[in-house]
Amino acid sequence: MDNKKIRFVLVETSSGGNIGAAARAMKTMGLSDLALVNPCEFRTYECYSRASGAAELLDDALVCDSLEVAIADCSLVIGTSARLRTLSWPQIEPHEFEQSFSAAGADAKIAVVFGRERSGLTNSELALCSQLVVIPSVEGFSSLNIAAAVQVLAYEVRRISLRAGAQPVSAPEKTPPGELPAVHEELEHMYKHLESTMVNTGYLDPDNPRMMMPRFRRLFNRAGMNRSEVQLIRGLLASLQKAANRIKAGS
Amino acid sequence: MDNKKIRFVLVETSSGGNIGAAARAMKTMGLSDLALVNPCEFRTYECYSRASGAAELLDDALVCDSLEVAIADCSLVIGTSARLRTLSWPQIEPHEFEQSFSAAGADAKIAVVFGRERSGLTNSELALCSQLVVIPSVEGFSSLNIAAAVQVLAYEVRRISLRAGAQPVSAPEKTPPGELPAVHEELEHMYKHLESTMVNTGYLDPDNPRMMMPRFRRLFNRAGMNRSEVQLIRGLLASLQKAANRIKAGS
Repeated sequence: MDNKKIRFVLVETSSGGNIGAAARAMKTMGLSDLALVNPCEFRTYECYSRASGAAELLDDALVCDSLEVAIADCSLVIGTSARLRTLSWPQIEPHEFEQSFSAAGADAKIAVVFGRERSGLTNSELALCSQLVVIPSVEGFSSLNIAAAVQVLAYEVRRISLRAGAQPVSAPEKTPPGELPAVHEELEHMYKHLESTMVNTGYLDPDNPRMMMPRFRRLFNRAGMNRSEVQLIRGLLASLQKAANRIKAGS
Repeated sequence: MDNKKIRFVLVETSSGGNIGAAARAMKTMGLSDLALVNPCEFRTYECYSRASGAAELLDDALVCDSLEVAIADCSLVIGTSARLRTLSWPQIEPHEFEQSFSAAGADAKIAVVFGRERSGLTNSELALCSQLVVIPSVEGFSSLNIAAAVQVLAYEVRRISLRAGAQPVSAPEKTPPGELPAVHEELEHMYKHLESTMVNTGYLDPDNPRMMMPRFRRLFNRAGMNRSEVQLIRGLLASLQKAANRIKAGS
């Protein structure tokens, strides 16, 4: 596996020390792609000191102001969570990364997303993730330090690389373009299209959305859509939109 | 496995913050037996702050002035090391703990020993260890923060406990009816409904179906739909059907 395909995204981390420690944890395991969404002022002495020899990860970090931007080019987005949520999300344990990664395809860019120190990821951030990875901590004291969580997940990524490197490497099969995994941005356009269509036909009441969009997201995320499937759905929506417009024009 | 049988021993740790973070890392994974050999002055604000809710591990820590004392009641002593030493020691990786632990016997008290932040364990300390565990970091940047190393090894201990406890503990949670997997018949009705809607809107030309239905089937099959999702899709289709009927009525 190519470690350059794995991005670790830290959302609104509030301690520069934690960001530095996370960078160090990544580097020990051969990871270098770090994105920071609305971080605290992090280029501090404490941060570089905890980063030890991993300063270049901090210097090269992608700093952005929304999770959407940080994952725009990613086709698999895995959120981290300390606990089970009521809305049952596809959940994996860290040692199951390998299956998720291979299912995403050899060319997939993958994001692993870490939430705020105190409050984790919001529901709308979780909605951008197709899977949750849960580190199997004990009940009653489940909250790992964020850099510690980064270390555990980076370690599991490293173990995949080592296993992959142990096998004879053969050229991976070339994926046809339509079969390439859809990237985050394409999916978001599809969801917007779906939402507006459903509002048009009256199926979705914007004042009472009844979790419809999250349920569609969960379904399609679970499938892991490729580009031609996104086009298939969007073509269908366009044909419905046209029908709806004809109604309006006729009425 | 009884986690009380596992002691983590930190030798001459020079930062109270690291000791606190190590305590937190242990507690998240259900470990509580901490020994400190010649530690720095560690009962500091920084230490308790990094320990978060794991203060009792610090309060109860066995503090002693030699590694011999810390491991006196242990029958298996595993040292941690960042790199391969010239002196070839029996080496394992963290995920191989289970074999070592079982070989030691069910009653064995086990110590995992962590060296100094900068210089690790001395040769005479290593001589007290019967095995070395090596976290598979990258060459050239192999030094994990000590609390991060504690987190990774505690995580692997936790995974052994979970595998051991994986036997039926309590009745599995009842799946809500809507979350039950959809049965074949329900899916077939949904596909028929989808097909007729697409024909109605003109998206699917019955004379030139272009593999549309097989592609939808492949997508939804991959997701593995549950009943409430089938209803979600069928509700959407019904709302479109209504729209289409209104067109017909109006034309």
